[in-house]
Amino acid sequence: MVTIAFEDLTEGLVVPLGEVKIDREDMLEFARRFDPQAYHLDEEAGRRSVFGGLSASGWFTASLWMRAYVDHLIGDSTAQGSPGGRELSWLAPVFPGDVLRCEVTVVGARRSKSRPGLGIVELSGTANRGDECVLRFTFAGLFGCRE
Amino acid sequence: MVTIAFEDLTEGLVVPLGEVKIDREDMLEFARRFDPQAYHLDEEAGRRSVFGGLSASGWFTASLWMRAYVDHLIGDSTAQGSPGGRELSWLAPVFPGDVLRCEVTVVGARRSKSRPGLGIVELSGTANRGDECVLRFTFAGLFGCRE
Repeated sequence: MVTIAFEDLTEGLVVPLGEVKIDREDMLEFARRFDPQAYHLDEEAGRRSVFGGLSASGWFTASLWMRAYVDHLIGDSTAQGSPGGRELSWLAPVFPGDVLRCEVTVVGARRSKSRPGLGIVELSGTANRGDECVLRFTFAGLFGCRE
Repeated sequence: MVTIAFEDLTEGLVVPLGEVKIDREDMLEFARRFDPQAYHLDEEAGRRSVFGGLSASGWFTASLWMRAYVDHLIGDSTAQGSPGGRELSWLAPVFPGDVLRCEVTVVGARRSKSRPGLGIVELSGTANRGDECVLRFTFAGLFGCRE
């Protein structure tokens, strides 16, 4: 029996997803594999860039947020994937050693008309460094209904 | 001297970004690290899911698209990062062995008023399996101007 189903994800619900720390080596490894731009790989190029320092690929930050979302909410749920999002914002550069507090808020929820037993949940995920939001992802998640 | 600057990214330009093949082990490694949901990790769970088979994390597909975008367009450019996107769509599940043809289209371009020397380019990136679009990412990219 799963813990979280569509019925549990009601509008306004805010779920803390814990903290992630940006590990320098992890960040560089991701950049080498998926986003080898100079400012994500090289200190000096980072300093000269608009970011002002070696910074994380936005896809790394988003992927770390996803991990937090799986670990703290949907890992034990009726989640059936996502068709995507209508906002993915990288609001500020992320640096090695940063600690990001992750969270997700249920923005809305409705049952699918075309697929009985499934619900569509609109969610907004954020990662914050102190009071500053550095990542926001607003997306739809599909979840099986309990009943 | 860089190859690509703001001035080169004119509305309507379509740039092929090559093909990426979905490697099963790479796909699983990414899922274990960033998106450990059962249908991304386990054959049987994948078959039972709405995806009908072991499928890639959408973040893996997006990250592979990013790599193609760096390799074929912005690796040697005046790119200065991205504030994010207004659409990230996972339109169909992606499976091991799939070959995705990546592409990016310039949707619009304007000079920044607040930051002289920078231009804001609206781009739409896609990954296609045959005729089927499996990923679309519509986003803004900041680029330095040549002049």
